[in-house]
Amino acid sequence: MVTVRFEPEGKGVTVRRGATLLEAAQGAGIEIRSECGGKGTCGTCRVIVENQAKLSDMSERELRHIKPQDLRLGYRLACQTVVEGGTVVYVPRESRLGVQRIQVEGMERPVRLEPAVRKFHLALVKPTIQDVKPDLERLLDSLQRDGVDRPEIDQELLKVLPDTLREAEWDVTVTVWNNKRVISLEKGDTEGSLYGFSVDIGTSKVVGYLINLRSGDVVAVKSMENPQIAYGEDVLSRISYAMKGRENLERLGETVTEAINILIFEACQEAGVNPKSTYEVTVVGNTAMHHFFLGIQPRYLAVSPYVPALKRAVDAEASSLKITVNPHGNVHVLPVIAGFVGADAVADVLATGIHEAEELSLLMDVGTNGEVFVGNRDHIISCSCAAGPAFEGMHIKHGMKASTGAIERLKISPDTLEVEYVTIGGGKPIGICGSGIVDAVAEMFKCGIINRQGTFNRGVQIPCLRRVGDETEFIIAGSNETGTGSPITVGRKDVEEIQLAKAAMHTGAAVLMKRRGVTEDDLDRVYIAGAFGRYLNPESARFIGLIPDVPTEKIIFAGNTAISGAKMALLSREARETAQRLSKDIHYVELTIDPDFQGEFLRSLFLPYQKLEKYPRVLSYFQSRGIDVKNWNRGL
Amino acid sequence: MVTVRFEPEGKGVTVRRGATLLEAAQGAGIEIRSECGGKGTCGTCRVIVENQAKLSDMSERELRHIKPQDLRLGYRLACQTVVEGGTVVYVPRESRLGVQRIQVEGMERPVRLEPAVRKFHLALVKPTIQDVKPDLERLLDSLQRDGVDRPEIDQELLKVLPDTLREAEWDVTVTVWNNKRVISLEKGDTEGSLYGFSVDIGTSKVVGYLINLRSGDVVAVKSMENPQIAYGEDVLSRISYAMKGRENLERLGETVTEAINILIFEACQEAGVNPKSTYEVTVVGNTAMHHFFLGIQPRYLAVSPYVPALKRAVDAEASSLKITVNPHGNVHVLPVIAGFVGADAVADVLATGIHEAEELSLLMDVGTNGEVFVGNRDHIISCSCAAGPAFEGMHIKHGMKASTGAIERLKISPDTLEVEYVTIGGGKPIGICGSGIVDAVAEMFKCGIINRQGTFNRGVQIPCLRRVGDETEFIIAGSNETGTGSPITVGRKDVEEIQLAKAAMHTGAAVLMKRRGVTEDDLDRVYIAGAFGRYLNPESARFIGLIPDVPTEKIIFAGNTAISGAKMALLSREARETAQRLSKDIHYVELTIDPDFQGEFLRSLFLPYQKLEKYPRVLSYFQSRGIDVKNWNRGL
Repeated sequence: MVTVRFEPEGKGVTVRRGATLLEAAQGAGIEIRSECGGKGTCGTCRVIVENQAKLSDMSERELRHIKPQDLRLGYRLACQTVVEGGTVVYVPRESRLGVQRIQVEGMERPVRLEPAVRKFHLALVKPTIQDVKPDLERLLDSLQRDGVDRPEIDQELLKVLPDTLREAEWDVTVTVWNNKRVISLEKGDTEGSLYGFSVDIGTSKVVGYLINLRSGDVVAVKSMENPQIAYGEDVLSRISYAMKGRENLERLGETVTEAINILIFEACQEAGVNPKSTYEVTVVGNTAMHHFFLGIQPRYLAVSPYVPALKRAVDAEASSLKITVNPHGNVHVLPVIAGFVGADAVADVLATGIHEAEELSLLMDVGTNGEVFVGNRDHIISCSCAAGPAFEGMHIKHGMKASTGAIERLKISPDTLEVEYVTIGGGKPIGICGSGIVDAVAEMFKCGIINRQGTFNRGVQIPCLRRVGDETEFIIAGSNETGTGSPITVGRKDVEEIQLAKAAMHTGAAVLMKRRGVTEDDLDRVYIAGAFGRYLNPESARFIGLIPDVPTEKIIFAGNTAISGAKMALLSREARETAQRLSKDIHYVELTIDPDFQGEFLRSLFLPYQKLEKYPRVLSYFQSRGIDVKNWNRGL
Repeated sequence: MVTVRFEPEGKGVTVRRGATLLEAAQGAGIEIRSECGGKGTCGTCRVIVENQAKLSDMSERELRHIKPQDLRLGYRLACQTVVEGGTVVYVPRESRLGVQRIQVEGMERPVRLEPAVRKFHLALVKPTIQDVKPDLERLLDSLQRDGVDRPEIDQELLKVLPDTLREAEWDVTVTVWNNKRVISLEKGDTEGSLYGFSVDIGTSKVVGYLINLRSGDVVAVKSMENPQIAYGEDVLSRISYAMKGRENLERLGETVTEAINILIFEACQEAGVNPKSTYEVTVVGNTAMHHFFLGIQPRYLAVSPYVPALKRAVDAEASSLKITVNPHGNVHVLPVIAGFVGADAVADVLATGIHEAEELSLLMDVGTNGEVFVGNRDHIISCSCAAGPAFEGMHIKHGMKASTGAIERLKISPDTLEVEYVTIGGGKPIGICGSGIVDAVAEMFKCGIINRQGTFNRGVQIPCLRRVGDETEFIIAGSNETGTGSPITVGRKDVEEIQLAKAAMHTGAAVLMKRRGVTEDDLDRVYIAGAFGRYLNPESARFIGLIPDVPTEKIIFAGNTAISGAKMALLSREARETAQRLSKDIHYVELTIDPDFQGEFLRSLFLPYQKLEKYPRVLSYFQSRGIDVKNWNRGL
């Protein structure tokens, strides 16, 4: 038996020697397109493999479906490739079934199914003149026999209690939240219908899961752009907008509430669920999104000392927050850690489980505002890093979001300097997204086109470089290849944006490791969370020094762990309590006042880092090719 | 030293021999009018005394101010009457200061001042980049040092928390309810301003106390007619109205809410208190009023088995019940016992303290729907009695409410059969109220005008009897004396109404005593609660058999104990918990299915009761006058 690991999920599966990659993928629960049913005729099951040596040789059918440049990138057809040893397989977006769904998923830890909302079908004894126990006490006594000790009851339910009980002929189903509040009273037996909804309010995207709380199954997944974008692309511009008046703040809150309600409506419609049968919603988001959603003044998040209004989890009646599930249902907003370490980051920890492991983990959620955690079950410390939007393709000349037409992966041949790239959707490129630009910087550095300072080496004379005014640019795709008719290039300014962003992230990790008294060698796991991290090439990330130099097998791309954590909190009261504890116990390090911050940041601007001994794998790559990386310049 | 007891309060005071009744009243805290300052010249301090033997002889000045017929009723001037031994003094309404205030007061038990709402003035440390604790946690940590362990906070307060703290420069006062919810956040130190309001929603009258929760003092008392009267005079007709549609039920709720808001407004204005500084309202009322106030369907109270929607106390946000105090303040509605034993009855028990005493008590709240309790600290049982509205002057030919112009007390001279009466306000009579009609029936029975069956004796030929059609009527006030120009009379039908009413009350007491295995002789105290009981002549009540035959000193007129109990629950969390426990522990006896009910009711229709040995004091009254009460007929 051999192990195959699928990226970017990081999911491993053990299969017999001789199985195909398609079979292995099915075993790992990775859905790969296979329109011909595994006959090798449709060519839809294209995957990228790391180590061809452990696989069957390239077949005729594969050669028919894979272009020569793709062969060099490691493309294979999953249905034709037979496993002969342990290998790592990258499944690109275009080969996946249900692309939308995959984009919004993240790793998660198994939890015991124990939601905060429970249903109890009660067959009550009708009162008589000999038994005049009041309606509520009759109901509560029955609940007590089911182990629920005198919960409160919503005032509105109390009003209709007498009529409802009699109309139902004393046969009702009661929904209880957290063993302490009766939130619904339904006629007859409705125990089978118990749903919840989990939401991740991202700055760019709102993602929601509709979940059957009886089985724990996700029954619908929906996502949409965060409509707050109309009021500002990033968090700070939205806070500025909100600061201009109470109505503005309210508008931002309503906007995101409406988005969530649309997702709930669509998900319920798709799954054939009545929204009233959804009794709880769990919400995560960064601290600003959290404040907007709750209608809390966010202005003090934007000015030193960046203090949030509160840390602890909030529970509120759905109707009071205008969330259109069951009106007496509960909305649970997960706790935050600090002004720039939000409920989404708490969810990251929850979903990766770094707080439970004995092993030491580094967790990095890479984004405009990055969060970094270092620790294990004994203690975790955290910080936030102002990486800026470069990883989302912003402030990059030909940058774009990770959507159709974006170059998401690329390689530069060390010999010919020819560029091979993969675009999202497989068509002509129209720009380059975060993971593509990281690849570009790493590859340009590998090839000696740019140096450790990130500047173009003098004297390099190759066709894929061009001058635009005073600037040198590397041409990724020529005008004849692109969908726009203009070339896609990477210039000094773009490299610098990536250097600043990666230095911010790396500084966070380095300072936390120093605070924790550990080094890269002590790390057992490096989790890369967040949608961006998902399509990142770990080797490139290491080459530019975005992540510390650890063996690739220690790197786990965890995906959208924010929504995973929200889901865990929906399914499990224990997970929710853990989140509360994490928010309290995780120590927040304010990076900007750390004495090591400035020096570390300056060192981190280098590719991969000023002190090369910190990047032995990068060093050995060059050494094995006889290159002195300190003076490596293809032009000389 | 001698003891003087003032009625109807039942307040005793110990004074030196030689003190005047006016001085004694001042010592007992009973406010008697005394316009001349005790010189005996104004005649405003008229009181009625039970035992002239223990007092100074009638002075010249008194004779000048008291009419001969009033002398016979026992009137004296309080400033001129010197105490020479223990005595009981009745203070009529017209001699009181602040009549309105007195009407709404009741006895109460002292409680430790420990309201559910508390204020904490907090001087918080401003956050810095070294101390980025979130706003809420900063506030809660400070509260924890004051012993309040992580209360919840209202969602609306959370929204304004960041701005408020900074505008107040971190100097704020926080109001906490029940150690578990932050309900107010005010800038600066407002600890001195902490008020509460207690309400008794009576079927006829709504009474409210504004109370300073720092001192426990009542700072304003307000009352008004229950405006629900527009939708029905009594409880059942209002329930019928409510049953006709949800809007009707809502209208009844709104009506009483509005009445309470008027009382709050007026009380706050009188006392110079901002209604927002009122943080809690406690509410009592019978079960129907309780349901109306909470907007709960009351129809099932009106049909067998008369089951209320709930027993236990309700706590709700003031704004959710539209009560215009501090919007996040709490409304605490006291628990009920059964469909016809409401929160007002729980308050009666609380205020009389029968649940704390080792002595055995009988507590009767006399009204249209009467409540009876028998018990002590070990155990209490209760029932409700459908007495009907006769005690409120309804269904009585010349009956009226206890308001100005009503005959409230009367005596018939056993010799001359002349009637002496007292009217409320002291002017000409226009009708007769409950206490007056009870006196009339007792006196007519004493004088042999009516017999034990309540019918007019044959052969009585006296000028104060007249025939109207087939009916005999006793003329209380001739047409020349009344304010209406028509005589005020009591006929057979009126006597019968009183018989039915008193039999209902007595049956309740008798059945409960039987269930408890006790007799009249075992009773240590008989409390008469309710506005009606307040002006009742205990001797008359005993003569007609409304109350059991116990020595007068065991009878305590407790007044409006409903509002007293509501006040206790406002001042003391312990009292509130006790009320909750009482509602659970007091055993309710459904009278109508009790095997003894019917027989007991029939026996109770007699004056005072079928078995005369149960009324030895009544029997001995007649015996001492050589009268065989079984055949007593003035006409023979």
